[in-house]
Amino acid sequence: RAGRPTWCVLYQLSKAGKLCVPAMNVNDSVTKQKFDNLYCCRESILDGLKRTTDVMFGGKQVVVCGYGEVGKGCCTALKALGAIVCITEIDPICALQGCMDGFRVVKLNEVIRQMDLVITCTGNKNVVTREQLDRMKNGCIVCNMGHSNTEIDVASLRSPELTWERVRSQVDHIIWPDGKRVVLLAEGRLLNLSCSTVPTFVLSITATTQALALIELFNAPEGRYKQDVYLLPKKMDEYVASLHLPNFDAHLTELSDEQAKYMGLNKNGPFKPNYYRYHCVVDND
Amino acid sequence: RAGRPTWCVLYQLSKAGKLCVPAMNVNDSVTKQKFDNLYCCRESILDGLKRTTDVMFGGKQVVVCGYGEVGKGCCTALKALGAIVCITEIDPICALQGCMDGFRVVKLNEVIRQMDLVITCTGNKNVVTREQLDRMKNGCIVCNMGHSNTEIDVASLRSPELTWERVRSQVDHIIWPDGKRVVLLAEGRLLNLSCSTVPTFVLSITATTQALALIELFNAPEGRYKQDVYLLPKKMDEYVASLHLPNFDAHLTELSDEQAKYMGLNKNGPFKPNYYRYHCVVDND
Amino acid sequence: RAGRPTWCVLYQLSKAGKLCVPAMNVNDSVTKQKFDNLYCCRESILDGLKRTTDVMFGGKQVVVCGYGEVGKGCCTALKALGAIVCITEIDPICALQGCMDGFRVVKLNEVIRQMDLVITCTGNKNVVTREQLDRMKNGCIVCNMGHSNTEIDVASLRSPELTWERVRSQVDHIIWPDGKRVVLLAEGRLLNLSCSTVPTFVLSITATTQALALIELFNAPEGRYKQDVYLLPKKMDEYVASLHLPNFDAHLTELSDEQAKYMGLNKNGPFKPNYYRYHCVVDND
Amino acid sequence: RAGRPTWCVLYQLSKAGKLCVPAMNVNDSVTKQKFDNLYCCRESILDGLKRTTDVMFGGKQVVVCGYGEVGKGCCTALKALGAIVCITEIDPICALQGCMDGFRVVKLNEVIRQMDLVITCTGNKNVVTREQLDRMKNGCIVCNMGHSNTEIDVASLRSPELTWERVRSQVDHIIWPDGKRVVLLAEGRLLNLSCSTVPTFVLSITATTQALALIELFNAPEGRYKQDVYLLPKKMDEYVASLHLPNFDAHLTELSDEQAKYMGLNKNGPFKPNYYRYHCVVDND
Repeated sequence: RAGRPTWCVLYQLSKAGKLCVPAMNVNDSVTKQKFDNLYCCRESILDGLKRTTDVMFGGKQVVVCGYGEVGKGCCTALKALGAIVCITEIDPICALQGCMDGFRVVKLNEVIRQMDLVITCTGNKNVVTREQLDRMKNGCIVCNMGHSNTEIDVASLRSPELTWERVRSQVDHIIWPDGKRVVLLAEGRLLNLSCSTVPTFVLSITATTQALALIELFNAPEGRYKQDVYLLPKKMDEYVASLHLPNFDAHLTELSDEQAKYMGLNKNGPFKPNYYRYHCVVDND
Repeated sequence: RAGRPTWCVLYQLSKAGKLCVPAMNVNDSVTKQKFDNLYCCRESILDGLKRTTDVMFGGKQVVVCGYGEVGKGCCTALKALGAIVCITEIDPICALQGCMDGFRVVKLNEVIRQMDLVITCTGNKNVVTREQLDRMKNGCIVCNMGHSNTEIDVASLRSPELTWERVRSQVDHIIWPDGKRVVLLAEGRLLNLSCSTVPTFVLSITATTQALALIELFNAPEGRYKQDVYLLPKKMDEYVASLHLPNFDAHLTELSDEQAKYMGLNKNGPFKPNYYRYHCVVDND
Repeated sequence: RAGRPTWCVLYQLSKAGKLCVPAMNVNDSVTKQKFDNLYCCRESILDGLKRTTDVMFGGKQVVVCGYGEVGKGCCTALKALGAIVCITEIDPICALQGCMDGFRVVKLNEVIRQMDLVITCTGNKNVVTREQLDRMKNGCIVCNMGHSNTEIDVASLRSPELTWERVRSQVDHIIWPDGKRVVLLAEGRLLNLSCSTVPTFVLSITATTQALALIELFNAPEGRYKQDVYLLPKKMDEYVASLHLPNFDAHLTELSDEQAKYMGLNKNGPFKPNYYRYHCVVDND
Repeated sequence: RAGRPTWCVLYQLSKAGKLCVPAMNVNDSVTKQKFDNLYCCRESILDGLKRTTDVMFGGKQVVVCGYGEVGKGCCTALKALGAIVCITEIDPICALQGCMDGFRVVKLNEVIRQMDLVITCTGNKNVVTREQLDRMKNGCIVCNMGHSNTEIDVASLRSPELTWERVRSQVDHIIWPDGKRVVLLAEGRLLNLSCSTVPTFVLSITATTQALALIELFNAPEGRYKQDVYLLPKKMDEYVASLHLPNFDAHLTELSDEQAKYMGLNKNGPFKPNYYRYHCVVDND
């Protein structure tokens, strides 16, 4: 998510015919996606909140805006620790996933008054507006796990009628004229980057993916890659994963010749046929 | 999964240049995939086991072979009910997902002696061999949630030294000469189809997807579809999902004009940019 | 729960001075309580609902009335399978536990219109009234996991303006004049006894507890037990548990002499000092 | 747990006839127990580990020694975040609970070589011995959530052949001659007190309980309390809980007169009959 600008720009350059070298979109490799977003955020949402606010999660009412990978990670973790979580979504597929995973799908305005915690993970801007900030209850904690610093309309809070009080590093109390306080974390910037740490394991996954992508681009025979944006070849994505399995003492099963033939697979991978998409839709254009 | 033959055949026909009409691969639409596989199997594994064996899940040692969508559904449900679950995988990416989700990744041979329950969800054949059946402990339950009836080598059990005893519909005890009994469900055919029911909700998702695909093919302007296999247009996939949201009293958020512009999206969807892939890898070829 | 009448009567007899032999309250032994109530109901609520209605749990709105052992079991299971669960309680301690476990604590009237599923586990009567049945939405499923057949006011449904339609064994549709249908299971009797099975493992725990209690009463030296109601001696409760551990390949740790001394315990148990109460309050009178 | 010495001493004094005033054992009130132990430790184990080591929980192999309230909290949280957790126990009842909750019950020696994380919550001493520390793998993290600083035999690590390296506050690397490092947190003292914070909510519960106990002792009519140790009257325990419910917007259900009569309860509580014990055994002696 934080990386979106880069790959987004690459696609825009490519579309405009202005990309002058082949590029690899490592952000969207399965391994990196899952680690940086789902699995890493599942932990960093808890970590970031504890280090800044010491809030107890049990029984807290939470709304998570956006049920993509990051939102799924946040929801899973908070629910597991006893929070009562609902979500907002614009995409009906993600919304239906949310239902199946046990989260009420609401509009932010419907619940904003009751929430103890508001978390944005949308990739969008002004997801939490000044009007909604005005309606929050005293003590409500607001933070951003999505991208940039625009998901919460922080600018609207820099206004003469509101007082800002820095209570500790990365934690501001915004005080309304009636004394109500909203707790804003990291001034609306990314909580996971500002107030939590990134496990070395995730760094290792990311660095390995990037290094392999560079090696692939460097070693590729003339003509394999044109001035376009490519995804990491699936086999290489699998290789990154396989390099990290020993850490977990995980033992991979090998296909027998007979099984590989039955599946139409090479015994050394890639292990998914071309039309496999790890639970996903693919464009036809 | 059960549908695999059909779409698999379509791709083979297409590859061989023998497909004489456009075809829609509805099996791989996000909505259908998630419902038929992940969410439906999460429930039917429990239902199928209870109706056939009345087994208590708490404390049982379970190995799930294959950690794709179906495997993920089975693992989630059984773990939630207190079973101790480990998995086998051939694909390092899925194996690493398994680690992150809290399952030990093992080879079947390492654990087969201790298991109370062996479940296959691989799409492969001979995943459970006669040798492994020989090593199972007395009372071990074996069943197939994957595809066809080849995942467990049932043929090897039709052998003179073993006695089959039908204890109730869909449940056979295979009795070894030393008296050991292995409980085989549905003679190795799909447990979810043989011993469980499909919720009407899932049927509705599937039927809606199929109907919309037919309508799209019928209404499409000349030339949109050639003699090839297509995935359901993303917008239509989203439409299927949106039709089912009212059932859950789920309230979708609408983008403001400003937000739609910021995201580069049409307010009515599709809600994911073309390069979005619901956590997935895509081939470049 | 189902056993309440028996032990309840024993205490009443004792209080009235009419108990003419010593009696053992086996219902309240830890082992039996946990198995019969929490762990068994965690599974039988799912089993009973599936066998009768084939309902999909994912995304369903559920209210569980009563958050004792049975309620906790039902809530845990349904939440794990993606239902959105809230609870009702009369006891503030159990209500606070519910909060910490991530369930909204509501009054039944506040939510009755939205619910897909209403489950009673209170030990009380008329927990679901005719007025509330009148306000349920079409298709709402109502069942009782608590005790007796009085938790739902079923009598009020045997009324000329309502039509009963038996759709399968244990499942009645109650049809309102406007066509609304409420799905009543087991005519309000216990779902777990009527529509689900009891795992042999639970039977074994219960039978072992009862047998040991009888042996203890028979073998006890003159004077150990008077004409009163006793709880199973803790050591015997532990013994029941220890007899069932091998089933799970569970390996108990033994105290060293030094450790036993430090803890003030006998190495063979009982392992809890007299003032230990498995998370509980005890009366001083 | 941390409070054990105090109430333990009170019981010893009482037993020895040396208690010269009435005392209230507030530690064992349900409300305080649950909050200080189960619910608080469920969060502080994660918080304490993150702040000290930044460890990623997903896929980690963890052994939790002791499956009482604190152990249950630790296990629940770590399992929910993707760790693979097993437990050790001396008490067969707690061990059987562990099985039902999905944890393998092992002896520490069986698993010590594979563990990434060893957590003690036993109330005992020398639960982790020098011999076991010698067998841990490189990078293993060891910490104590139980009591005192004796659960891990830290003294045995202050030995000339081992090097201690303080890597940050509360974190020591113990370095073996072969270069192996074990990560010891808080020098074996309580992780939750040393490296985590206590939510204000838990403090409020504890303080309220203590204040009410003092008020009760002060206001009690002559003769209600003798020179002994008492548990907080159940009604007062319920009162503490009820005072905290509004924080969660939790709405308690009130008994009707008819229901109170049916249950044999006073409408204002206490809500559990005298023989109720929140899932517990009570001694008759």
